[in-house]
Amino acid sequence: MKNYITHDEWCIVENGFHAEYNEITESLMSLGNGRMGQRGNFEEHYSGKSLPGNYVAGVYFPDKTRVGWWKNGYPNYFAKVLNACNWIGIDIKIGEEVLDLNMCEIETFSRVLNMKEGVLERIATVKLAEGRRIKIHSKRFCSMADDESGAISYKLTPLNFSDNVTITPYLDGNIRNRDSNYDESFWNEVHKETGFSQGYLILETKQNPYGVELFQVATGMSFDIKLNGLKTEYQSLPVKIDKYVAGTVKVEVKEGQELSVYKYGVNLSSTNYPKEKLLEECKAYVARIAEEGFDRLLETHIQAWAEKWERNDITIEGNIAAQQGIRFNIFHLGQTYTGEDERLNIGPKGFTGEKYGGSTYWDTEAYCIPFYLSTAEQKVARNLLVYRYKQLDKAIENAEKLGFTDGAALYPMVTMNGEECHNEWEITFEEIHRNGAIAYAIYDYTRYTGDDSYVNDEGLEVLIGISRFWKQRINWSKEKGQYVMLGVTGPNEYENNVNNNWYTNYIACWTLRYTLEIIGKLWTQDSRKLNEIIIRTNFSLNSEMESWKHIVENMHFPYDEKRKVYLQQQGFLDKEILTVDDIAGERPINQNWSWDRILRSCFIKQADVLQGLYFFEDEFQTEEIKRNFEFYEPMTVHESSLSPCVHAILAAKIGLKDKAYEMYVRTARLDLDDYNNDTEDGLHITSMAGTWMSIVKGFAGQRVKDGMLVLNPYVPEQWNSYSFRIGFQGAGLLVSVSKTDVSIQNTSGKSLTILLGNQRLFIDAFGSVRV
Amino acid sequence: MKNYITHDEWCIVENGFHAEYNEITESLMSLGNGRMGQRGNFEEHYSGKSLPGNYVAGVYFPDKTRVGWWKNGYPNYFAKVLNACNWIGIDIKIGEEVLDLNMCEIETFSRVLNMKEGVLERIATVKLAEGRRIKIHSKRFCSMADDESGAISYKLTPLNFSDNVTITPYLDGNIRNRDSNYDESFWNEVHKETGFSQGYLILETKQNPYGVELFQVATGMSFDIKLNGLKTEYQSLPVKIDKYVAGTVKVEVKEGQELSVYKYGVNLSSTNYPKEKLLEECKAYVARIAEEGFDRLLETHIQAWAEKWERNDITIEGNIAAQQGIRFNIFHLGQTYTGEDERLNIGPKGFTGEKYGGSTYWDTEAYCIPFYLSTAEQKVARNLLVYRYKQLDKAIENAEKLGFTDGAALYPMVTMNGEECHNEWEITFEEIHRNGAIAYAIYDYTRYTGDDSYVNDEGLEVLIGISRFWKQRINWSKEKGQYVMLGVTGPNEYENNVNNNWYTNYIACWTLRYTLEIIGKLWTQDSRKLNEIIIRTNFSLNSEMESWKHIVENMHFPYDEKRKVYLQQQGFLDKEILTVDDIAGERPINQNWSWDRILRSCFIKQADVLQGLYFFEDEFQTEEIKRNFEFYEPMTVHESSLSPCVHAILAAKIGLKDKAYEMYVRTARLDLDDYNNDTEDGLHITSMAGTWMSIVKGFAGQRVKDGMLVLNPYVPEQWNSYSFRIGFQGAGLLVSVSKTDVSIQNTSGKSLTILLGNQRLFIDAFGSVRV
Repeated sequence: MKNYITHDEWCIVENGFHAEYNEITESLMSLGNGRMGQRGNFEEHYSGKSLPGNYVAGVYFPDKTRVGWWKNGYPNYFAKVLNACNWIGIDIKIGEEVLDLNMCEIETFSRVLNMKEGVLERIATVKLAEGRRIKIHSKRFCSMADDESGAISYKLTPLNFSDNVTITPYLDGNIRNRDSNYDESFWNEVHKETGFSQGYLILETKQNPYGVELFQVATGMSFDIKLNGLKTEYQSLPVKIDKYVAGTVKVEVKEGQELSVYKYGVNLSSTNYPKEKLLEECKAYVARIAEEGFDRLLETHIQAWAEKWERNDITIEGNIAAQQGIRFNIFHLGQTYTGEDERLNIGPKGFTGEKYGGSTYWDTEAYCIPFYLSTAEQKVARNLLVYRYKQLDKAIENAEKLGFTDGAALYPMVTMNGEECHNEWEITFEEIHRNGAIAYAIYDYTRYTGDDSYVNDEGLEVLIGISRFWKQRINWSKEKGQYVMLGVTGPNEYENNVNNNWYTNYIACWTLRYTLEIIGKLWTQDSRKLNEIIIRTNFSLNSEMESWKHIVENMHFPYDEKRKVYLQQQGFLDKEILTVDDIAGERPINQNWSWDRILRSCFIKQADVLQGLYFFEDEFQTEEIKRNFEFYEPMTVHESSLSPCVHAILAAKIGLKDKAYEMYVRTARLDLDDYNNDTEDGLHITSMAGTWMSIVKGFAGQRVKDGMLVLNPYVPEQWNSYSFRIGFQGAGLLVSVSKTDVSIQNTSGKSLTILLGNQRLFIDAFGSVRV
Repeated sequence: MKNYITHDEWCIVENGFHAEYNEITESLMSLGNGRMGQRGNFEEHYSGKSLPGNYVAGVYFPDKTRVGWWKNGYPNYFAKVLNACNWIGIDIKIGEEVLDLNMCEIETFSRVLNMKEGVLERIATVKLAEGRRIKIHSKRFCSMADDESGAISYKLTPLNFSDNVTITPYLDGNIRNRDSNYDESFWNEVHKETGFSQGYLILETKQNPYGVELFQVATGMSFDIKLNGLKTEYQSLPVKIDKYVAGTVKVEVKEGQELSVYKYGVNLSSTNYPKEKLLEECKAYVARIAEEGFDRLLETHIQAWAEKWERNDITIEGNIAAQQGIRFNIFHLGQTYTGEDERLNIGPKGFTGEKYGGSTYWDTEAYCIPFYLSTAEQKVARNLLVYRYKQLDKAIENAEKLGFTDGAALYPMVTMNGEECHNEWEITFEEIHRNGAIAYAIYDYTRYTGDDSYVNDEGLEVLIGISRFWKQRINWSKEKGQYVMLGVTGPNEYENNVNNNWYTNYIACWTLRYTLEIIGKLWTQDSRKLNEIIIRTNFSLNSEMESWKHIVENMHFPYDEKRKVYLQQQGFLDKEILTVDDIAGERPINQNWSWDRILRSCFIKQADVLQGLYFFEDEFQTEEIKRNFEFYEPMTVHESSLSPCVHAILAAKIGLKDKAYEMYVRTARLDLDDYNNDTEDGLHITSMAGTWMSIVKGFAGQRVKDGMLVLNPYVPEQWNSYSFRIGFQGAGLLVSVSKTDVSIQNTSGKSLTILLGNQRLFIDAFGSVRV
């Protein structure tokens, strides 16, 4: 655990340079706008520890699978997020000396990510050779208002000398993914061009044998230089080498003068423009934003952030670390996915790193959708559903590769384009509960928004595909006289290839039930639409529905009669039942124990039975949830970032306030304090939604019941009060919770009736209530 | 299945060149002498499909592990068998034309491996450019009498022209393993040197970060050239390039003259000589064998083979294909392991290929030891046991890496030096039944030889280490009130991470029982020796023995009361129970089904419960064996080369003669007919012992009971008769079985009483009986 980030309500602050943690800071201070993003690298050359990272949404490379031992069914490639052209670079020479913070004495240094404004700022004074001191002041952002562009203001002041300063703003495509399977570059150069103070570089992904399209990204830059805030005359020397363009400018700067470089960057991808238009569009875009200028761009950018915060902010009084933590999580979720484009999804590292590749895991459905449902326009969550609908054909192909037939769909464990990329058999082929989460998200969306157009128009096809998969994946056990599901990995990945994982069995049966219910509803509401779907999916109304009902009625669910708890899987009680206290010195077990030992232990990586009780809370008695929580929580090591939030929500529900707070703390500052020693690879974006849920669904008890918003809030002892903003079916609420009362302000023009505990509250448009 | 090898009793014959199968033929026609070996490559340059392979026993390279996803506990490296210096190469130029059978017209061709003599011979006439025809006649062997050397006679006759012939005998170390993890060469050159008709090349394995010793191999050659069988004057031009030495000789050869090249090769390894002596020793060795000459070397080599066949031949009358098959298997087992060196073991591909790396699997104990026990001097099998004894410390280290303590030993799945090399968690960490086979081999040896000195002097320490492992690996299930063993992979690798694999549970308890029995015996026989072992192993006589007994008495063994069969694992009957006939078009399933589908199916890769019934036959009723056989056999797909032999032996025992023969046929010509389409990678050496067992333990019912040899022979319908030679406790027997009678000839000076069926037979020294 690191503790070098200064606590602040709105900012992530590094005071004094921590070179050894630089890759961590770069992750924490990443910028993004849903369309492009980058790590918090320095603009000027830096020879110390650094992971330069620039990413463009939706472009990827199919990297040939590399495994130790091939298993039948493994995918051919892993679609990797691409580390793309570096457009922020500005090399600086003071006289003949290269400015490199790794090679000079740093006198003062602060790096600040202002989350309110989405701006990264750095102020430093450094001492060069012969005691020459300069001040650096850089500021940059990825425009939230103009989402294919970003801008930089980079200022230098010689404090005790005068000399020539050479400035080289550049675009550099000589970049490799650290996680490349065969240590190769994924980019070819297509075009490069320089102008007086411009540069353009078009890169294309390398050929691949998998029929995956080749992506092009056109990166453009324009720069301008001022001295003491005034226009100045300068010469620009163009540089063009392999996958690199730059312009070099030499300026004489006198002691105390401020030299300013403004650099504007644009990334256009062939996913959004015809390849033959990329250059032209890029030039026009660059010209437009350069014309607009840094200050104006910044202003509209900050305005866009202000509108976001208006929808999704959470305030916490009484604990600055907690306040910083929750805003940090909300901020990065907002940077990663804006919901503008239904072809995009929420990468596990967003634009903060390239590890894990792919962009879409079940995290999206299980953790992120509730966040976007409550804090963004309805279309944002809907687009995440549409994303899966558009990949239904691929999900059917994935299932066919594993031997399933007749339209059974298995959504991938990780993907970019719908094709499975993962290659560990116990996960790729067996962690199939992910399919259930995709069905659940349809339910979640429909319940929250009250909008059943998605499930009727598109969702039902997805539900039928998934239900067909469950039907075929489940088999009849003569021995039990029940249906069973063999050979799965549940959410708790510390068990592999188990039989009758309770959670997977449950969500499978639930999917069948829900699909039957939707078919039934549509039958009465719009039988013509149902008929179209039946024809499109070649659905056998009687026989398929009968077989599903038979499964629902005869499924095996492992249960312990003595303890009255659901068993994580068949045979779970054959294990030696210990608690995490028994192995205090040996955690994290994933670093200290061999895999087999982890597997045969009782210890749980992340919520498994409890994930099911969280999802399907309404189908269980609170006492039952409590019994299961008290059985499983003490065995849970929470070695997944996705684990604590579910425990926090359940603990809050069953009145275990200390436990709920303990779990909240574990998620809130996971990356900020680098709990898992892996923040340098990038942030845990998807689990950030879990932090938000811990407050809103946990402490504030947000639910939906019979189409009505439910709140059940309390303030954790450690805080004075907190407030959060959520939207619900067209209304916007600011909910403030203190130790004594709850006040709810309707910030929208739509009135709303909610349940506060068991109390029905009518809240007028723009009105408020206090209880 | 291929069918191009001509059936012959003693020879493997390729008539006409099958270029497309050349790598298969190269595997089939491999030569070896336990110390070195090589694939049946051509001596002269060949540009077609070929896997050049030369191997030297006991040298290896620790190739850094490469996996898709790291699991805690994986070994750092895989010890790879090294493709070593090519010493057989003789490049030929006729005039200016390179002789390359891939580039000229082949008129006649035969390649013959004479298994009686251990000689590979090739006779061909080929047409070069402009209709020039030549005859090639090569013969070579790896001397079984002088096991660090080999010799070649290579003869050329121009049939219709006269021209200069350029001959370049060489040593070439520019060779790579096809299975290298990082596509790198494993060899560095240490020294090279040429003489008038000699060459020497010393190679050393590359540096490694694992502390594994660097091996050196000194390869030397000498050559001589004759014309029409007479000495001739010639000049030799030395060639020295990177990792390559040669001598080039130009000779004028007239039409009809026979040009003979004799080449002698020597491989000395630093495992047997101090590195600083290698060159000197190699030179002396080369000089000695060159002096001896091809004919004399060949003579002693053939004599050594004759002595081997005297011990291990099996004849079959009435089926030439079966005769060829069994001799082929015996021959390659004889080439692979001679038992001269207790540091060596039986590589899965012997000297016929490099795939799978490592040299030692549980195959040695479970399949090969019975063969060597019956067909070689007692020390041969004993050396295989000593090999494991010497690696006990490493086995304890392996177990420690997985969290075991206090002297628990886990022998590796695959190894060279005792360190685990395998890297699939479900096998590496969980296929732990291998440990039991190592204990079983001690019992097997002791029972067969009547020699308890090994178990008392060395074996008991191994047994204690293994028993301690079982003790710690087993846990108490409160739920069952019994001991269980969770998370294992049985011999049937088509199940992973199962609980209570019956076979593993059984062999674990058997190990505990056997260890207790040996301790008990030694207590009464030689308590001082026992005391030494107790001190050496820090053994707690009371508490450890008590805990083992408690396990033996309270272990859980999954069983189906209805069918009265042992269950392969807990929950086996939840599967859909099918037979192989139900999936006729889908086999082999390991090529047609995804891994998860294989895992959740009932289909069995190789004997699992049946492996246990085979090992511990005496502890079960025949009816019980029959019931289990009839349950499991129909589900067994035999997709391991180790599977059919166990089924053959059991089928023979329970009277299913057709099934026994069917299973025998599957093993006997597996490589010869390339059943599995993988003979090109090398032969399945260890499973060859299974073929031998199918006859001797299967059809002939060989067993040991109360220290007495038991036979229970019958002739398969498809044969007229068969005979085999075995040794037993100092006596040597030739057993001939016909449809009407059994005759047993004692070829040794030691009389013996055996059980033929239930009949006690006394066979005098050099006497014989007929029944």
